[in-house]
Amino acid sequence: MIVLAVDCMGGDHGPKVTLPACQQFLEKHPDAKLLLVGQPEALASLSHPRAQVVAASEVVSMDDSVEIALRKKKDSSMRIAIQQVKDGAAQAAISAGNTGALMAIARYLLKTLDGIERPAIATQMPNAKGGATTVLDLGANVDCTAEHLLQFAVMGSALVSVLKNDDHPSVGLLNIGEEMIKGSDEIKRAGDLLRSAGRSNDLNFYGNVEGNDIFKGTVDIVVCDGFVGNVALKTSEGLAGMIVSFLKEEFSRSIFTKIAAIFAYPVLKSLQKRMDHRRYNGAALLGLRGLVFKSHGSADAVAFEQALERAYDAASRQLLSRVQARISQAAPLLTASAVGAGAETPA
Amino acid sequence: MIVLAVDCMGGDHGPKVTLPACQQFLEKHPDAKLLLVGQPEALASLSHPRAQVVAASEVVSMDDSVEIALRKKKDSSMRIAIQQVKDGAAQAAISAGNTGALMAIARYLLKTLDGIERPAIATQMPNAKGGATTVLDLGANVDCTAEHLLQFAVMGSALVSVLKNDDHPSVGLLNIGEEMIKGSDEIKRAGDLLRSAGRSNDLNFYGNVEGNDIFKGTVDIVVCDGFVGNVALKTSEGLAGMIVSFLKEEFSRSIFTKIAAIFAYPVLKSLQKRMDHRRYNGAALLGLRGLVFKSHGSADAVAFEQALERAYDAASRQLLSRVQARISQAAPLLTASAVGAGAETPA
Repeated sequence: MIVLAVDCMGGDHGPKVTLPACQQFLEKHPDAKLLLVGQPEALASLSHPRAQVVAASEVVSMDDSVEIALRKKKDSSMRIAIQQVKDGAAQAAISAGNTGALMAIARYLLKTLDGIERPAIATQMPNAKGGATTVLDLGANVDCTAEHLLQFAVMGSALVSVLKNDDHPSVGLLNIGEEMIKGSDEIKRAGDLLRSAGRSNDLNFYGNVEGNDIFKGTVDIVVCDGFVGNVALKTSEGLAGMIVSFLKEEFSRSIFTKIAAIFAYPVLKSLQKRMDHRRYNGAALLGLRGLVFKSHGSADAVAFEQALERAYDAASRQLLSRVQARISQAAPLLTASAVGAGAETPA
Repeated sequence: MIVLAVDCMGGDHGPKVTLPACQQFLEKHPDAKLLLVGQPEALASLSHPRAQVVAASEVVSMDDSVEIALRKKKDSSMRIAIQQVKDGAAQAAISAGNTGALMAIARYLLKTLDGIERPAIATQMPNAKGGATTVLDLGANVDCTAEHLLQFAVMGSALVSVLKNDDHPSVGLLNIGEEMIKGSDEIKRAGDLLRSAGRSNDLNFYGNVEGNDIFKGTVDIVVCDGFVGNVALKTSEGLAGMIVSFLKEEFSRSIFTKIAAIFAYPVLKSLQKRMDHRRYNGAALLGLRGLVFKSHGSADAVAFEQALERAYDAASRQLLSRVQARISQAAPLLTASAVGAGAETPA
């Protein structure tokens, strides 16, 4: 039995979205049980033999500071959901709430794995090869050091090797074009660390990649600072959204284009499906002693269910222990890089 | 008469692409004259009464270091083209060569405007409002300080106010989502500087924007570090490319989809046109005492001609003197921020 703890109050829409998603999910997975965390009166509409309400009186709002979420709202649905993972009552927690708060609470309650200073957020983006490229970090960390980027590479490799059954997924370091000034000093230093890890076979390091390589599918994993990753993700979402609205508008312009749309329907549907970022919803918080998944705050029920699927998939495949094992294997590498860099300064 | 100096040897393709583009351009603009800079024997195929060859014996290659380009190849087509601007023989120079080298040579020969420490590269990206969003910097500068970002905002405002005849174009600072840890210390400090410039009416500062706002057209100008801007641009190009190939593939899958493609042709053509990054080719190097435009290295003749058009447009509108005037106006603002930050450290 897979047990997931769901923060039902988080995100822009709360139970209105999370409960229908939970209902759908339970129907699909007869071996799953959900802990619905939140205010019991708000969760009364879902009744299912494999759903159990866990009461939490407070809600972390989308604009609560990390400080408020962590210190003041000790009975929040977000925190109680993660607490279920810590207590062993659930194998993974899912929340659509405030990313900063989720990361801080998860880190505070679960702690990071040995060798990992900062957990990272990893997501998948569709690529031209018909697969997906795993990108991390996506906004949990700004101002990353070379050592952090190396840790992300190790965590991303562990994630992908488990999910894709590929022992040596390739890693690229996101940088600016060959013909340009090639990145900051920190990025150059990260390149050195990654190259050296590649030489010793600790990682399958491909080298520098550029923004377009994410969609080309040049490598399995793209590693970057959280600021850069967040901008790349949001920019892509913006462009995809613009293209979809453009097509809608153009195809409804006249009776002729409307007829064209009927003919083109299967292709457009397939494009829309491919570009639907709801399908990629559910980002893993990596590097913690427990599984936590983050849904987009604005997720609808389809998207939120996707995040539940990812958490379910990760729990079924024992992602946590397998990632932990990979990171332990890489311990000498991570320690060496930390020593090389002198004193560590966890954020 | 508008005179442009063209580095005919630069880029991935050299004269094969630049000469046909020059020919096309000359036919469209009876009031323009081109200085074709490069090895005379390579340029012999273009003969036009308003085209004049300026000999340069060397070529900066796409992988030459800045050092080599600047110190060793003193007779490169890139350098001689920029020299034409410095000497007053041309109003603008255009090159598809190595960005780092172009920036370094332009900066060395032309010098920066008062108050500007680092020139920036600005380009336009299409937005959902049917217009274009100006984004800078795009890779000339990594590790920008808050003061650099303020300078970019002033330069971008100057550019857009000239090109769009809008005295108060809006500026957004690229950052990560509201619900996230909001950027590095430097970005927060840049926000403070920009807000204060907004309050004193020196800039029309909108506030923080996210990656998706570039395509939404939330603001006229998006300001960011060159690393981040480069990743956003390349990621978008990658996604657009993926969508175009996906549509091509899907529409040619069967006889039915091929028929659908015929019906959908006008819409697809219009989408392709809208997404064709060749239309947006030609990025301005801002902050220099002369006009220089950078074409994509892989530009074809259509794209390179577009870069010539942008340079022509800028020269016709007296972009240089007007940007210079706007920057002088903003001098007190720039000086105050520089003093506020203590000692300046030009890169």
